[in-house]
Amino acid sequence: MSWQTELTTRLGIKHPIIQAPMAGGTTTPALVAAVSNAGGLGSIGAGYMAPDDLAGAIAETMRMTSKPFAVNLFIPQPFQIDEERIEQANARLDVFRQELNIERPAPPKHYAQPFEDQFETVLEAGVAVFSSTFGQLDAGRIKALQDHGTCVIGTATTVDEARALAEDGVDMIVAQGSDAGGHRGTFMGSAEQAMIGTLSLVPQIADTVDIPVIASGGIMDGRGMAACRMLGAAGVQMGSAFLTCTESGAKPAHKSALLESRGRATAVTRAFSGKAARGLTNRFIEHMAPIEAALPDYPVQNGWTKDIRAAAGKADRDEFMSLWAGQAASLARSMDAAELVDTLMREYDTCIQQ
Amino acid sequence: MSWQTELTTRLGIKHPIIQAPMAGGTTTPALVAAVSNAGGLGSIGAGYMAPDDLAGAIAETMRMTSKPFAVNLFIPQPFQIDEERIEQANARLDVFRQELNIERPAPPKHYAQPFEDQFETVLEAGVAVFSSTFGQLDAGRIKALQDHGTCVIGTATTVDEARALAEDGVDMIVAQGSDAGGHRGTFMGSAEQAMIGTLSLVPQIADTVDIPVIASGGIMDGRGMAACRMLGAAGVQMGSAFLTCTESGAKPAHKSALLESRGRATAVTRAFSGKAARGLTNRFIEHMAPIEAALPDYPVQNGWTKDIRAAAGKADRDEFMSLWAGQAASLARSMDAAELVDTLMREYDTCIQQ
Repeated sequence: MSWQTELTTRLGIKHPIIQAPMAGGTTTPALVAAVSNAGGLGSIGAGYMAPDDLAGAIAETMRMTSKPFAVNLFIPQPFQIDEERIEQANARLDVFRQELNIERPAPPKHYAQPFEDQFETVLEAGVAVFSSTFGQLDAGRIKALQDHGTCVIGTATTVDEARALAEDGVDMIVAQGSDAGGHRGTFMGSAEQAMIGTLSLVPQIADTVDIPVIASGGIMDGRGMAACRMLGAAGVQMGSAFLTCTESGAKPAHKSALLESRGRATAVTRAFSGKAARGLTNRFIEHMAPIEAALPDYPVQNGWTKDIRAAAGKADRDEFMSLWAGQAASLARSMDAAELVDTLMREYDTCIQQ
Repeated sequence: MSWQTELTTRLGIKHPIIQAPMAGGTTTPALVAAVSNAGGLGSIGAGYMAPDDLAGAIAETMRMTSKPFAVNLFIPQPFQIDEERIEQANARLDVFRQELNIERPAPPKHYAQPFEDQFETVLEAGVAVFSSTFGQLDAGRIKALQDHGTCVIGTATTVDEARALAEDGVDMIVAQGSDAGGHRGTFMGSAEQAMIGTLSLVPQIADTVDIPVIASGGIMDGRGMAACRMLGAAGVQMGSAFLTCTESGAKPAHKSALLESRGRATAVTRAFSGKAARGLTNRFIEHMAPIEAALPDYPVQNGWTKDIRAAAGKADRDEFMSLWAGQAASLARSMDAAELVDTLMREYDTCIQQ
């Protein structure tokens, strides 16, 4: 049984599989292009990218594929630069720095990339799909993208967020369940109350909006895809499953941790970036837990943990890294992205036909 | 497409639908018998029932159906009776009592029912299915039940718990995802780390054990059933969906709250019983939140909130009640249990055949 949907038709792709826009270097042009060339939709996770780097990544991806792909940006949010909180966090972070033999760095020149410039870069590049997380894109920018022929996807973690995005005029909605790895997309109300399981969230959002719903959170194989299809999704977005692909830029220690994570717990933590995100539990999370509520805002905390995460990556020390992982990450497999897309569709067909 | 599985065959039922064993008066003999007569498996939630009352409920259910049904018990856990915590909790609870015009009652004679006697009652009654929550039944009792021809079902919220239950020799496992309403069945490790979405939990447990897995948490309609089938479940257990049935003993205000809960948040709270459980957020939960971590153990807290919940039920005041609800409870419908079972199977078939 094929799964031809509004999603595949509208995006001009073959398979209703979106590789999630994981920020921080995971979504290399090689990964994005491989997914798109295999008939899915690759996504550049560009939230942390400087506009010039983003322009370069888009150009490189375009050289590697003529198929549609997406670029994802973080909608900016107000944040406080609280020196007291920064000092308290750094005092704890210094323990890691000591073990990694690095010095506490000078304050970052800026904590966030200039959104206006990031956005202009995407708009001018004329990418097929724009997706956003952490908030609502203003109506003017949504229209500008659509006028350029770009499909606009918003991310919701509750029914209310989905309704708001649909009213804004986005073309599709990613329903991010609490099973999902990485950052929570929540932008309305309390982050805790927006921890809704994918199985529960998808049908309620599908019943609320008239546009295609893309299920995300905990989908790792054809079983998860078929399940989401049954729930009313027009397609799926998968992060952890692509993180362990050959082309992914995730650190080797991160990939290994996911591949060996059966029975290992995940936690939602603000420890790495200041914003709630799910990863495998490790020493970093445990060590920062006592001051979790008093950590600097996102993206300030992110700026101050960057040096540690980079050094940990080089030293292959996964206890100091952000090991983003969804709740079914133990089902991860190590293969080329094209092979994964083929495998997923084969598994999906088997599930549906049984 | 039919969904004939190890579960339906082994239990001798027609449809792979188990009405969840909701304790506290919801699972009336009329509800349990109606579900079983309709081809599903009704369950008596007997955790809080005195042995004599349980014997009566089993006998009454047997008069109303000749079909298999289940009885569920809570596996006892050690608990502290901490007078300081009790007093602190009661000081807050007195605010509710004042508004409800009731006096703080005398201490309960006992906080938990005698498990040995509850168990003997079930064993002697020769019910078709025994299910348990909150822990592991000892091997001797599992064997005794099986020797009586009773099918034994355990409840797991993690892969590790499922593995332990399978090693104990249970016949089937309920995989309770974090989407589920009511009490968390967690009995190993931290309750927080055992908050795994149903979509993520089911395939990982199905890959771990060789016995049938029953999905639970967030399943409200044929879409959820079909999704769980795709994930590898042999059947589903549904609570909130049956709670609003005509025959359910849930308080009218609880039923109304569920039926009108679109977009309303749920929370996992220890406020009502001392054990983590999911319900619609309300004033009771918010008022107790500041001392959440210092509440008396389960079932001590349960004993001290009983009078308030009963009075709130009589007064139809849902702000003082435990409004147990799964994360998809807004999809609840008001109908007879038999009509619900028929509707579910019709919806399921439509999903599968589309």
